[in-house]
Amino acid sequence: MMNKTMLSLIAVLMCCNSLFAQTPTLVYHDAREFPVIGQYHQETNYNRLPAKYEKTVRPAVWALSRNSAGIAIRFRTNATTIGARWKVLNNTSMNHMTATGIRGLDLYALVNNTWQFVNSAIPENGFNSERAILKKGDSTWREYVLFLPLYDGVDSLSIGVNAGALIEKPQQPLLLDKKPIVYYGSSIAQGGCATRPGMAYTNILVRLLQRPIVNFGFSGNGMFETAVGEAICETDPSLIVIDCNPNTSPELIHERAVKLVTQLRACKPQTKILLVENYMYEHGYFEKDVRDIVFRKRAELKKAYNDLLKAGVKNLYYLGGDGFLGEDHEGTVDGVHPTDVGMERFAAHILPTLRKLTKDQ
Amino acid sequence: MMNKTMLSLIAVLMCCNSLFAQTPTLVYHDAREFPVIGQYHQETNYNRLPAKYEKTVRPAVWALSRNSAGIAIRFRTNATTIGARWKVLNNTSMNHMTATGIRGLDLYALVNNTWQFVNSAIPENGFNSERAILKKGDSTWREYVLFLPLYDGVDSLSIGVNAGALIEKPQQPLLLDKKPIVYYGSSIAQGGCATRPGMAYTNILVRLLQRPIVNFGFSGNGMFETAVGEAICETDPSLIVIDCNPNTSPELIHERAVKLVTQLRACKPQTKILLVENYMYEHGYFEKDVRDIVFRKRAELKKAYNDLLKAGVKNLYYLGGDGFLGEDHEGTVDGVHPTDVGMERFAAHILPTLRKLTKDQ
Repeated sequence: MMNKTMLSLIAVLMCCNSLFAQTPTLVYHDAREFPVIGQYHQETNYNRLPAKYEKTVRPAVWALSRNSAGIAIRFRTNATTIGARWKVLNNTSMNHMTATGIRGLDLYALVNNTWQFVNSAIPENGFNSERAILKKGDSTWREYVLFLPLYDGVDSLSIGVNAGALIEKPQQPLLLDKKPIVYYGSSIAQGGCATRPGMAYTNILVRLLQRPIVNFGFSGNGMFETAVGEAICETDPSLIVIDCNPNTSPELIHERAVKLVTQLRACKPQTKILLVENYMYEHGYFEKDVRDIVFRKRAELKKAYNDLLKAGVKNLYYLGGDGFLGEDHEGTVDGVHPTDVGMERFAAHILPTLRKLTKDQ
Repeated sequence: MMNKTMLSLIAVLMCCNSLFAQTPTLVYHDAREFPVIGQYHQETNYNRLPAKYEKTVRPAVWALSRNSAGIAIRFRTNATTIGARWKVLNNTSMNHMTATGIRGLDLYALVNNTWQFVNSAIPENGFNSERAILKKGDSTWREYVLFLPLYDGVDSLSIGVNAGALIEKPQQPLLLDKKPIVYYGSSIAQGGCATRPGMAYTNILVRLLQRPIVNFGFSGNGMFETAVGEAICETDPSLIVIDCNPNTSPELIHERAVKLVTQLRACKPQTKILLVENYMYEHGYFEKDVRDIVFRKRAELKKAYNDLLKAGVKNLYYLGGDGFLGEDHEGTVDGVHPTDVGMERFAAHILPTLRKLTKDQ
């Protein structure tokens, strides 16, 4: 009996300031009235692949493509209270990632030309959530971006503002005026295990680069597949990043990487392509089997890169696996998936390369 | 139907490498056979306050004191596989903190005289968990420390090693040979919202200072109480830190801080006492009410400090609230509770002060 009571007590005590403050009744607007970033197609949903791919990609990739990782809403408002009402597709939970990262929302405002965290919207227990994010702000007009769940899909989403406030399409072109980076990868690229959507490294990079990223991170399923390559061919990217080593066995990496790059080079003759090596898993420092497979995967990708160069492929770049998570071994929750610490370090590490490769785009 | 399937599928895909590898049958040893750090009393449990306090502290403080925040097990072994079997008291869950931080374990090994993360033990869904943490290591003798759950209690805990391996009390005195710091505070001090126990800032500081910390962080209930002061008086601390502003209303801070410091000065005439100001909550940059209350609390604590100095209290120190979470507003999950990013920054910020105040202890 004490157990159940304590559970609720702890939750209330931790959260009372942020979650249960009195907020005015909000007027809700369907989020699809505002520009969506990180989604390359025009369907009125929050899926990463358009409907036709249900027939062509593996079922796991299709299901994961309905997770809204990397998708965000741009708007402006003078509201003093901003809230959200949303319904997720799966009500996913995992024991090494917060529900807020999995199926919550994350609001940033433009302050002095940079995106500043306002607050997250912690999901309820269940499919439906309703939360005030900003509660008693001032009525300054501000530009906002709202990041969507990383490991669940969004069935519906409305943004609420206090009665009398205005909400409309953005005036500032930021995040709307540059060609996206397309990032094809694993669970790490999908955002596991950021504590809130804005801390996925791809979303950190969106803010730092002021450029959208189409997130093709498919948890456990980033496998250099040409069926995904077809979707990449449909995008209009400033840069294509391929970071599929974590989910691909060493035996498959060379053949698949060569085939995918060849496919992408054919459909996008000029677009720069960056191959990214897997980083060392933290428990690899204690487990030789883990360490060995990490090195074998790297060697296979490097060989694919060299063979592609020899075959005359242009505008192909390579980033080695060292240095992504810092030197203190504290960047992951489970040895593999970055926490916010690992996500910040990953973003800082890859930023100069992405900046250089997109500077003329 | 797809929903449930996908839920399991995603969980398996994210975790398969780290969680479901085949591991040998382990031989289990009760963790109480090994030295326990971060617990000042001698009872054979994993509670922060001894049993007699059930009668003297508020029920919420008592219940929270049964959360094992800051408690850790020291041992050495030559095992190639190390696992844990543990049962928690409450099976607590919160939507803005991982289950791993709430009720998981976190193993570190001594490597080149520093504590290096080996892996976390992600809890199961339920009260009972069993996990391999190190799976196929080498048989080097190593010193270890295993951090216990931050937001749940431990009913029982056994450490498992592969058959034929030895596990015994530590040879190295690290974390066992220095007087602890006692840290009295709020949910933030208790470790909310680190992704795994080792990333609570107090546990980061344990590793950096090579000194145990008795964690008296009581979520929502760090309120400068003399009933907790009685327990602090029973410890043998190198330093007492009081960081109760987050949970205490401005009206109560001055009176209670003066009373608590007076009590502690009476029972510990020479021990240094550090008063810590609350930091600015991230949403306070957008919400004037939040901002104002943060500043009022700071002013009240500063006034208490000055009045105590005027009254002749010696060895009393003060740390202002700026700079704890960095400058980019990215250190929290909900504007209040630090993520691993905020925890790292908090630890780095307070480290020089703690080092200075404990250097002769």
